Formats: sequence, structure tokens, C-alpha cells
Amino acid sequence: MASRTFVCLTAALLCIKTSTMGLPEDEIKPSIDTKAASKHSIDSLTILMLLGLLLLTILTVWFFKYRRFRFVHETGLSMLYGLIVGVIIRYTSSPNATQGYATAVVTDNTTYYSDSPPDIVYINFSVRNTTNQLRIKYDLAGTVNIPVTEPPLERTVTFDPEIFFNVMLPVIIFEAGYSMKRRHFFRNLGAIMTYALIGTTISCLVVGGILYGMTSLMYDISFNLTESIYFGAIISATDPVTVLAIFHDLHVDVDLYALVFGESVLNDAVAIVLSESVSVYGALAANDSFNAQSLFQSVGRFVGVFTGSFAIGGLFGVSTAFLTKFTKVKEFPLLETALFFLMSYCSFQAAEAAAMTGIVAVLFCGITQAHYTYNNLSVESKIRTKQLFELGNFLAENFVFLYIGVSVFTLQPLRWHAGFILSSFLAVIIGRMMNVYPLTFLLNLGRSNKIRPNFQHMMMFAGLRGAVAFALAIRNIQTVANQHMAAATMMIVLATVILCGGFTTPMLQWLQIRVGVEDDATVHLNQLSTSHNFGEDGCSSPVSPLLCITGKQQMTASGIQMSGSRSEKAWLVGKWYNFDMRFMKPLLTHARPSLMDTMPKCCLPLARLLTTEEQLSQGICNENDSDVDMIIDPNHLSLDGVSDNRVPADQMTVVDDTVRKEAMQTAYEL
Amino acid sequence: MASRTFVCLTAALLCIKTSTMGLPEDEIKPSIDTKAASKHSIDSLTILMLLGLLLLTILTVWFFKYRRFRFVHETGLSMLYGLIVGVIIRYTSSPNATQGYATAVVTDNTTYYSDSPPDIVYINFSVRNTTNQLRIKYDLAGTVNIPVTEPPLERTVTFDPEIFFNVMLPVIIFEAGYSMKRRHFFRNLGAIMTYALIGTTISCLVVGGILYGMTSLMYDISFNLTESIYFGAIISATDPVTVLAIFHDLHVDVDLYALVFGESVLNDAVAIVLSESVSVYGALAANDSFNAQSLFQSVGRFVGVFTGSFAIGGLFGVSTAFLTKFTKVKEFPLLETALFFLMSYCSFQAAEAAAMTGIVAVLFCGITQAHYTYNNLSVESKIRTKQLFELGNFLAENFVFLYIGVSVFTLQPLRWHAGFILSSFLAVIIGRMMNVYPLTFLLNLGRSNKIRPNFQHMMMFAGLRGAVAFALAIRNIQTVANQHMAAATMMIVLATVILCGGFTTPMLQWLQIRVGVEDDATVHLNQLSTSHNFGEDGCSSPVSPLLCITGKQQMTASGIQMSGSRSEKAWLVGKWYNFDMRFMKPLLTHARPSLMDTMPKCCLPLARLLTTEEQLSQGICNENDSDVDMIIDPNHLSLDGVSDNRVPADQMTVVDDTVRKEAMQTAYEL
Repeated sequence: MASRTFVCLTAALLCIKTSTMGLPEDEIKPSIDTKAASKHSIDSLTILMLLGLLLLTILTVWFFKYRRFRFVHETGLSMLYGLIVGVIIRYTSSPNATQGYATAVVTDNTTYYSDSPPDIVYINFSVRNTTNQLRIKYDLAGTVNIPVTEPPLERTVTFDPEIFFNVMLPVIIFEAGYSMKRRHFFRNLGAIMTYALIGTTISCLVVGGILYGMTSLMYDISFNLTESIYFGAIISATDPVTVLAIFHDLHVDVDLYALVFGESVLNDAVAIVLSESVSVYGALAANDSFNAQSLFQSVGRFVGVFTGSFAIGGLFGVSTAFLTKFTKVKEFPLLETALFFLMSYCSFQAAEAAAMTGIVAVLFCGITQAHYTYNNLSVESKIRTKQLFELGNFLAENFVFLYIGVSVFTLQPLRWHAGFILSSFLAVIIGRMMNVYPLTFLLNLGRSNKIRPNFQHMMMFAGLRGAVAFALAIRNIQTVANQHMAAATMMIVLATVILCGGFTTPMLQWLQIRVGVEDDATVHLNQLSTSHNFGEDGCSSPVSPLLCITGKQQMTASGIQMSGSRSEKAWLVGKWYNFDMRFMKPLLTHARPSLMDTMPKCCLPLARLLTTEEQLSQGICNENDSDVDMIIDPNHLSLDGVSDNRVPADQMTVVDDTVRKEAMQTAYEL
Repeated sequence: MASRTFVCLTAALLCIKTSTMGLPEDEIKPSIDTKAASKHSIDSLTILMLLGLLLLTILTVWFFKYRRFRFVHETGLSMLYGLIVGVIIRYTSSPNATQGYATAVVTDNTTYYSDSPPDIVYINFSVRNTTNQLRIKYDLAGTVNIPVTEPPLERTVTFDPEIFFNVMLPVIIFEAGYSMKRRHFFRNLGAIMTYALIGTTISCLVVGGILYGMTSLMYDISFNLTESIYFGAIISATDPVTVLAIFHDLHVDVDLYALVFGESVLNDAVAIVLSESVSVYGALAANDSFNAQSLFQSVGRFVGVFTGSFAIGGLFGVSTAFLTKFTKVKEFPLLETALFFLMSYCSFQAAEAAAMTGIVAVLFCGITQAHYTYNNLSVESKIRTKQLFELGNFLAENFVFLYIGVSVFTLQPLRWHAGFILSSFLAVIIGRMMNVYPLTFLLNLGRSNKIRPNFQHMMMFAGLRGAVAFALAIRNIQTVANQHMAAATMMIVLATVILCGGFTTPMLQWLQIRVGVEDDATVHLNQLSTSHNFGEDGCSSPVSPLLCITGKQQMTASGIQMSGSRSEKAWLVGKWYNFDMRFMKPLLTHARPSLMDTMPKCCLPLARLLTTEEQLSQGICNENDSDVDMIIDPNHLSLDGVSDNRVPADQMTVVDDTVRKEAMQTAYEL
């Protein structure tokens, strides 16, 4: 059924092409109009075809879910359907289909000299055998290789990668930040940052180095070192969406989930910034083989762009929290949702406008929004925003994988070189190894909750490449090297998504990774709120949430043992958590304690100004607070002196400050 | 505060422009890359500026709502903010800002001859004083006037009208169809169709005629008749969004609301198709002053496009209903919402691909989705889809009005001619008069519920022009005539939105139109379902909902008196309603009666196949059925023989068929 639809669609497409070409072309204007109309029809048909494929994917996914055949993820399906359509388009459309497109090379023998290429070119045009002259305008489209080879189907399924980077990717990444299970993410923050920052860089350099070596040995392809490392950067963004969906369905260990998820979210951002930095280095170093100054400049750019984008994202998140706290826009959920949506998208565009990376900004904006703003939203807006981004993410993700499938056969110009593709597979595998195993070894030295070998193998296996790698690869396919890279990236994406995606469940069994794990902390949290009910004072007493503890007996429940040694990092995280709890949360949300509780007495007037009525009238253990799903695992908040004996609320507030700080630090330890 | 933000933004914008231009341009490639980067930054800044303005609008709207200052609508505000920014951009950016853009006219003295203009032009390019040659590609952008005048700011705030037509307008129009209060709409269907189809055509011809006459008299502008009528078509789409918001807030008479709303929704579609048909006529008739064959062809095209688009929209709506009824996709609300969304957007693209009008298709798709599909959706998807389109509509609408504001000062090339603009104001007013008053006179001949003079004046007053007129006008500003039209359209949109929008409330008072009217029918419906409770059998008995009546005493409640005379149209509407109730609703939704109740005995096996378990297990007076807010006003379902005496359910099913049909017809009468 599926393939018949495609044949029909393709047939219809060709039909339209032919029919619009038969019109008389007596006049220039109508002829341009006809071209425009024909192009419009073809564009619509292309979109319609992609929409139809998405619909088919959705129906198939539903059918699989309905039949409980859960081990095919929708992104894999989208890609397969895309492949089928790609094949059909490729092998059913004859070269004749392009006969209507007249391509002209003007000034073939004359060369135009200037400081930079003109933005607009005009030509004077007349229909043959007439005198009616018209001036026709052409916009700068880019540079091309000589000889010019315009692919016959380029127009049929061309999708502007900028749409992906400016519309779809922000949605996907924002959703990742916004829906993140932050508790587990932050518990493993150190490891995640290590994999994402150091690991991705290692992977990038290893892949680049291997490919540089191998292409130097191959007689017919030559990549320079910068190009090789650029390829290393774009191929280092992992996207284990299939694996994560299966992890989620099977309730795999939460720490493993957090490691794989966290790494993949952050390394997209890292890979994007890294590839930009490599480009910058390439442009600066120009034809030199090595240039230390350029290297420092591009490393500087990497750090600058990353922190700058981080700051912009955080700033917009914090501003939204501020706006939603101090205006009563909550009374109008539509306005509130619109505000939330626009502020989040602004973070992306602001970073792009400042020549930073929008994706990094939007990721941290999403985390900030979830951490602060979410608490201030009306119930309706909470649901709306969650659902809106969930839907957006679903559609964008499937669309991208569908498009990957279609592109394999239709995107041109690509260069397929079996040797290069095989080498890049090898390089990617080695690069992943050099990322996972050595870093885990180092991390385990400092971790009390060791990352076991079977988890390491699973992380190795979860190194799928997906949307971001693909989009980076096709963003620029103007040079020969880039055309090779795009082809290799496509094959890697296809193979990893289909193979790793399909074999995740057997692999989990083979590695004896426990599935069906209840989220311990959630269970305990529930126990906490139901059986203990936060002491006799209930939720209304204004004690610090830090002190809502159940004591020592649950300390080891999550399986992570606390060690006595405090590393510098843990200290930093503890500091930040302390600051967040004492100033940021009280300032930006309606949560208790308020600034009036946490700020020194002398600042009381200011604190009063920044505390809302709602905040004052509210109990401290607010269940709507997103903290429930977040940063702090109450299990870790064990104060030795307090333990099982419940302390009355008014006594708890005078617990020694150092003890409290220790609790915070303990909570953050890896 | 507002204007300071704008100054900063503009300053930042100019700053970026200057800074990226200072880079050394030793190589062609980096120079193109720099251009691309600079363009990207400027694009991002432009988007950021528009987003910032939208945010400002939202906050202001919230503030006004909060302060109960309700008489400024958000679209008016958006436009005002846009105007302010437009002025700032226009008068703060110096011509120097464009120095980085090199524009070249290639083949200045040679003319390129061919059958049609080339799609792509390549030029050979070298940086001055080097030998490094590159081939640069240019895409066909359109025809231009000689002499070439490239406006300095064209790039800064250019917004592709195609984004409006392909993304924003479908959302706005779909939402209009999906959220329509269909009961009142269908009750006044005849009148609405008359105003939208005949009225818009009259307005188009009158405006065109007047302007043709006036421009012929003016010495410096000349429009031919086709151009004049084209302008008549684009300016005839009314968009009383401000007025409707006030009507809604003040609870103005529901029939007046339905007339104004219904006309505005349909006449957008009519104006779009009409303007296309006029273009087609223009192209066919070429230089002849009148050509009967072309006229017939374009009238044929109008009818064909309208009905074709209608059919496509309906088809996609019906398919969605079918899919949601017979698959259990309901169990996965995310998939269901995605399906709903994609099918609806498909209707748009399918119509466009078939060279029909997507807007008409998406409008009728929206109505069909609300009528059938909505009943099949899970509760979660009902909320999701409503909220999704509500948000989309809000953002799209405000963005468009904002952009109208900005465009007045920045869009180029426009031609401002006071005489022409004043003439077009006059023509628009006369055109609106010739639409409202004569047609109402004719309609009142057949209506028992006459449209009173104060309603007529209000309809006259509600003839605001908005987004659709603007978008049609700027879609093509390549000819001198079109540049005049775009300028006049902008002024008309500005003046009507601000003046008519601002004076709606005083006008309502002056015309003594009753406000605070409770929706009679809703009140009665509530009474119906609470106090009477549908007779002793309650909701579970399988009688036709047609017979859930309260009798004669409420017949005149809504103020529409039934007359004895049946016109042909009422008969047709009755027929359709009968068909809808007996076949379409049972086939496409889970509502009772099912096909097993309504189809002849011989078709029972087929009927069983098309009836779901859910349908069988369900009571007939399903409150979730969107009919509650829809087509049939129970007040009108008065069967003379039944009236107050409640008939037991099993007897009711044998009520004479002719009586039932009469009831249906009565219900639909105007």
C-alpha cells in the first residue's frame, strides 16, 4: 500500500511538471509566472509527500504500539519510509523531467572582477524573436564547482538545512532541556560534562586523526587535517533517541539513562560549537599546516561561544521567571504561554544574532525555564507548554529522520567512496571507544558509585548518530571534501539508527543490565509525602525544604554511597546549590523559603519587595514545585545529628549553618 | 521605555552591519562566508526585534486586561508598535548602511534571448588583482523595473509574504473554522453566503470600477480595468478581528456576531480566489480591453477553484474523522494530535499542489474537523488541539499586524499618491455600502427574522481590512500599479483597524445595539439538559437526537420566527442536514444513532461493520458531541404534533417521516 501511494505521488509530480510546461510562452511575464506556479506546485507536492510519509509513520507507530510490538522506534520507521521514497524518486524520474528548466551560464568567457561577489545580478532578457525587453533579477545562491553539474532532482526534494537549524532543532533541544529529569541529570552532572566536553573533543580529534591518516594513504581522496577534524566534530554529536525510548519503556537503571541522555544532549551543543571553531581555525590558518595563534584563537572562540551562549540562554530563562513571577500574566494562560514560547525562542535568536550558538542557548534556556519559570506558571500553562513542546519535538524529530531517509538517494551532489565510508565507520567506533572507556576509568577513580563495565559497553553501544550530525553534514556540500563527508555521515546515521536501534533490547539482555527498575527516589519521595507527611507541621510551616528529611535509613537507598572526600567540583556544585536555594529560587519563583527568610536582616525592605503575596501565603513543601522532579534527591539530605528524631519546625530553623551546608554538598556528590 | 529598546536594537543592528564589513576580504570564499554570516546575524536581529515587539505587545495587552482597559485590541497595539519601530528604522539608518552590498548589473548592454528566462545564472568571478577564479550561482528572483532601484533597507525587515500564505494564514483560517460557533453560523448560512460570495464580488467590481474611473481622470496614474478590478478583489477581504473581540467581550447579539464573523471568514477565501481569477483573466485577455472567452474562463476558474478546494478540505476532514474513528489511535493522544495536525495541514498543501486555493480548503477542513473528528478525539487531544491552534492563531495574528505596522515605513518600493489613496478610501466605503444595504434588503424579503437597520449600519462599520488584504497586496509589488495598490491597502488597513477598532464600543451605543445578551440557545440547552433531562428515558435510549425536543414554547425564544414558506435553499439545507444526521455523523463519529439505526434493514451487515463498539455502548445525547455547540438549534426542532406532551421513546421512533423532515427544514430556515 505504502509504495503504491509513493508511485502515485511521484507520477502526479511528474504529471504536474509536464502539464505546466505545455503552456504557450508568448510573453515573458506569464512565462515567469508559470514557472513560479509550477515551482509552487512542486514545492507543495514535495511538502505533501513528506507530510503523507509522516502520517504513514504515525499510523504505523500506532499500529506497532497497539500490537505491543514496541521495538521499532518511530524515528527508525520514518527513516525507512524515507529511504523507500528516495529510491522511488531516484529511479522513476527520467532526466526528461528537467527539460523545462533552462540553465544559463552568462559571461562564460568573461570574468567579473571586484572585491567581493555581487549580491544581485541583473540580466536583460528578451523572448527569442521579439523586442520586448525585460530586466530579470537573480539572487546570490553560492559558489559552485567547475564544471557545473546541476542535479536533475535537486529541486524536487530540497529542504533548506537552515529550516532545520532555525526551527526544528531549537524545538528538539529545548524540549530536551525542558523535559529533562533533572534530578538524575544533576546527580551525574560531573560525569555527563566529562563525556560531553572532554569526550566529544577526544572523539573529534581521534576521528579526525584516523581519517587524515587513512585518506593520506588512499590515492584518490585527500583531506587536509582541518577538514578531517571538521568531519570529526560533525560526526561526534550522538543522538540515541531510539535507545532512550527503549530505556524509557523498559525502565532501565536511572543512572545509565541519565548518563546516556545527558551526554547526548550536551554533546550536540559541543559538536556544533566545535565544528564552528574548526571552521574558524581553517579560515584563519588558511594554507598553513599548523598555526598556533589560530589554534588559540579557535579554542578561545570555543570557550567564548559556549559560555556566552550559556549565559544568554540562562538570562532569557531567568527573565521569563522574573516576568511570570512579578506580573499577574498567570490570569491569562494564553498570554502566559505565548510569553513563555516567545522568550524561549528569543534566547535562540539572541544568541544567533550575537554570533553565538543558538542551540546551546536554547538548551540552557530550557533547563532554566523548567527550574524556575515552570513553578510560576498557571496549571493550564504548565500543561500547555509541556504538550506544545512534546508535539513539536515529535513532529520535528520524525520529519528530520524522514528527510534523512529521502536524502540518501536524492540529495546531490554527494560523493560515495566505499573506502572512505568504511574508514569513517572504523574511525567513529574507535573514537567512541576512546571517549567512553578511558574517561570512565578516570571518573571511576573519583566516583563511589562506580560505572560498571556493562554500563560502559551500553554507553559505547548507545553512540548513535542522528539529526544533528546529518544537518551539520548537509549544511555545506559545496566542496568535494564536504560531499564525501555528507555521504559518509548519512551511511553512519542509517546504520547506527537501524542496527543499534534494533538491537538495543538484545544488547540489554546480553549485557545483563537490569530492566524494570523502579525509580527508587520516586518511590521514596512518594513514601515521604504520603506516610510521613513531612512531620506534624505539615506543609505550612516556613522551614527550609532542605530540612524536610527522612533521615539516615534512606541514605543508601538509591545505591549511591556517600564518600567522605570532597572534591573541588563537589564543593562548587554545593556552593551553587546553596546560592540557588537561598537566592535564585526565592527571587525567581513563588517557592518558600522566600528572600525574607534567607537574606540578612538588613536587607529586609528589599527582600519584602521581591517577595510576592503568593509566596508568603504558601507552604514550603509545595508539590507543584518542579524540585520534586529535580536537583535535590531528598535521600541524600541526611543530617547526622537529626536523623530519625523529628525536630519541631521552629527548632529546625536554627540547625547549625555548617551542618546545613554539608547536607547540600553531600546531596551533590557524584 | 519601548522606544529606547527600539533605538538600542536598531543601533545594535547597524553596529553588526558595520563590524562585519571591516573584515579583510583576501579570498573569495571567506568573503562569501562573511556575507552569509553577516546576513544571518541581521536576519536573526530582525527576527529578534519582531519577537521583542511581540513580547512587548503581550505584556501591554496583559497590562490593559489587568487594568480592565479592554478597548484596545492586541492587533491594534501590535500595529502601533510596528509603526513606531518602522519610523525609527526608516529615519535612523543612514544610506551608508548599505555600502557593503555590491550590486552588479551584468550584461548591461547585451540582451539575452531565449524562450524563457534562465532559472540559474552563473558568473565567473575573481577578486580584483588576483587570478583565483570561482563560479558563482544566482537564482531567479523575478523581474524588475528599469531603472533598477534597490531600496537600501530591503534586506533589513523583509519578510517573505509566502511565509504568511503558507504558514500563518492557514493557522489563522483553520482556527476560524475549528473554533467557529457553528450553530449560529449555520443558522445564518444563507445570509453569510450571500454577503461573502455575492457581496464580495459586488464590492470588488464597484471598487474596481470607481478606481478605474478616477484613475482615468487623474493625469499622472493610469490603471487598466483588470488592474483596478484586481485591486477591488484584494481590498474586499474584510478582517474585523478587533470588532469581533469586542463583540465577544460585550456579548453582543449572537446573530449579528454570526453575520459579521461568518462573512469575514468566507470573504477572505472568496477574495483570494477572486484575485487569482482576475489575474488569470488579465493574463488571458492580455492587451484586449474586453474578452468574453477569457471572462468565462476566469469565472469558470473561480467556480472550479472554490468547489475544488472545498472538496479537498472536506475530504481531508472526513478522512481524519474516519481514521480517528476506526483506529484506536485515541489511546495515544500525542499520536492522535500529530495525526490531526498533519491531516489538517495536508488539506492546505494538497489544494495548493492541485493548483487550487489552500485557504479555502483549510477553512472547510477546519469546519469538518470540528463537526466530525472533534467528537472522536480523546479528551486530552480535544484540549491539546484547541489550545495549540488558539496559541498559533494568537501568535500569527499579532505577528502579521506587527509586520503591517513595520512595513508602512520600511517596505519598498511603494508609491504613495494622496489622490489615489483618497480615491481608494472612497471606493472601499462605497463598495461596502453596495454590499451591505442592497443585499440586506433582498435578504430581508425572504427572512422572517429581519436584519434591522442598526445591524446593517454595524455590518457596514465592521468592514475592516486586515491581514489578508495586506498580504495579497504585498505579494507582488513589481509593477507600478501594484506598488500604488500596496500603499493604498496599507493606509486602508491602518485607518480601519485603528479607527473602526477604537470606535466599536461608542458605535454600538450610538446604534443602540443591545449588549450583554445571554446566548438564549445555550441557556435553553442547559435548561434542557438539567431540568427536563430528556424525558424519563434519560440519555440512554436509542432515539434520534432530532426528537430530543422541548416543544413549541421555546420556538420563538431566539427571536427568529418560523415562516410557512419554504424556499429552495432551505429545502437543500434540510436535505443535507437529514443526510448528515442519518449517514455522515453515524459513519464518521461515535455518536448515536448509529448506521444500524438509520440504514435500511438490507444493509445491516455493512452498517454493523461501520459501527464501533463504543458507538453501541453509548447513549444518544452524548454531551461530548460537538453538536451541542453546533448545527442544530434544539429550539427549532418543534414538531407540531408532539409539542409539550412527552412521547415515550419507542413511540417517538415511529413518528411520521414527513414530520421529521419538516422539523429538519424548519430548523434550517433563515
